Amino acid sequence: MGGVRVVGWGHRRQTREKAREQGLCDDIFEDIGQSVEGADLVILASPIGTFEEIFKKIGGYLGGETVVTDVGSTKVLPHKWAKKLPRTAHYIGSHPIAGSEQRGLEFARDDLFEKANCILTYGKKVDAAALKLLRQFWRELGCDVYEMGPARHDRLLANVSHLPHVAAAALVNASADEDLKMAGKGFMDTSRIASGPANIWTDIVTTNPENICGGIDRLVGELNKIKAAILKKDAKRIGSLLEKARAKRSKMIEFKLKKKEILS
Amino acid sequence: MGGVRVVGWGHRRQTREKAREQGLCDDIFEDIGQSVEGADLVILASPIGTFEEIFKKIGGYLGGETVVTDVGSTKVLPHKWAKKLPRTAHYIGSHPIAGSEQRGLEFARDDLFEKANCILTYGKKVDAAALKLLRQFWRELGCDVYEMGPARHDRLLANVSHLPHVAAAALVNASADEDLKMAGKGFMDTSRIASGPANIWTDIVTTNPENICGGIDRLVGELNKIKAAILKKDAKRIGSLLEKARAKRSKMIEFKLKKKEILS
Repeated sequence: MGGVRVVGWGHRRQTREKAREQGLCDDIFEDIGQSVEGADLVILASPIGTFEEIFKKIGGYLGGETVVTDVGSTKVLPHKWAKKLPRTAHYIGSHPIAGSEQRGLEFARDDLFEKANCILTYGKKVDAAALKLLRQFWRELGCDVYEMGPARHDRLLANVSHLPHVAAAALVNASADEDLKMAGKGFMDTSRIASGPANIWTDIVTTNPENICGGIDRLVGELNKIKAAILKKDAKRIGSLLEKARAKRSKMIEFKLKKKEILS
Repeated sequence: MGGVRVVGWGHRRQTREKAREQGLCDDIFEDIGQSVEGADLVILASPIGTFEEIFKKIGGYLGGETVVTDVGSTKVLPHKWAKKLPRTAHYIGSHPIAGSEQRGLEFARDDLFEKANCILTYGKKVDAAALKLLRQFWRELGCDVYEMGPARHDRLLANVSHLPHVAAAALVNASADEDLKMAGKGFMDTSRIASGPANIWTDIVTTNPENICGGIDRLVGELNKIKAAILKKDAKRIGSLLEKARAKRSKMIEFKLKKKEILS
């Protein structure tokens, strides 16, 4: 992406200074209007709860045919809010499935998107040139690009990301601090994502409520299947439930190794 | 541990050959009696379900004052079964909290126990010399040694190890194979332990049923707390539940960093 001018916006002075020091952008503004003026592509990377307000604020500053996207974890509501953008702006949702539980510029990594999946979301009508630009943008960052409607995205991500987050948090909350001191690597990994910022995840959970509640019900159902087998002392059934999970995960790993998304 | 003679037992010829090739022991036998004859310390490292039978089989071959231990993940039942050992043998349970989801000699690592916690379990009466030997053994391998009764061990480990395993398996089973292809690192880590061998984990689950069922109930309770807050659209409550988990995990990480059990 040579010749591209990268302009940032940040409401905290400290963040703006850090971004300048780390050379993360060519310029960074406190004024949101100024930051999007003349932009070909605008990317929202703040908590989902701020999107509606930002769409309202930037509308008047966007030039013609600007592509607007975001990196939020839910898409149905952002698509609804994006209707407030001017008709000449083209909103397409982006969800690069990458990142960690850490937050802040100090955890920036230039290989973050290497081999990551990135989902683009849009409805029946989409501007072909905008879509082409956005696809190219993520591909040049190293992503494998997938495309789907926002509703399918939110259902899918509830299963592979939002539900695991809720499960990890519930697992941590289910044990006493004193017990957790004796936790080994198994618990540490299983609970890692529970260390993610609570405000970001509250936005995710509140903007995808039905899918996450459905996921909780399915997870509780699976937990109770195992409990029922334990109460019946049915070792064969316990074994088959555990083996089913092992085999499913093994299939997933195989797929990801083949795709070189993970290395052995 | 210079001057120590390490003798193995393995029922599969292939395992015995691999162990010899890798130089994991001075000798390895197919005959279990032969493998324990003259031993000062006998360590069971097979699935828990095999312990009762092994205790019966080795009893006649143990010399006086042999220390017998195991590396199983539950302790109440092994202590009960160990009553079948001759009076001159001293059984103390060991649980080094280390390892991975992988199985087999090819995943052997000589730094596996470095900074790991190891719990020794015994009742009111314990042979002081046996305890001293076993403590020293694990410490020389790099472990921090803790001691407690088998019932407390099983309750504690249900929370930090057995429940997470059941939760990881349930989480994998709650999603379709097709969806899992889109999983990111969050899901991969949260579900890693579900790849552990189903037979080993069936033994763990069936030998610690009450504690695991209690844990499932608590986990389901925590999941339903989050669900209730989602249904009420109570963002503040969702945020406080996620923040509670984040803070608890952060305390755990701090403890483990201070103890140098994990490195930053």
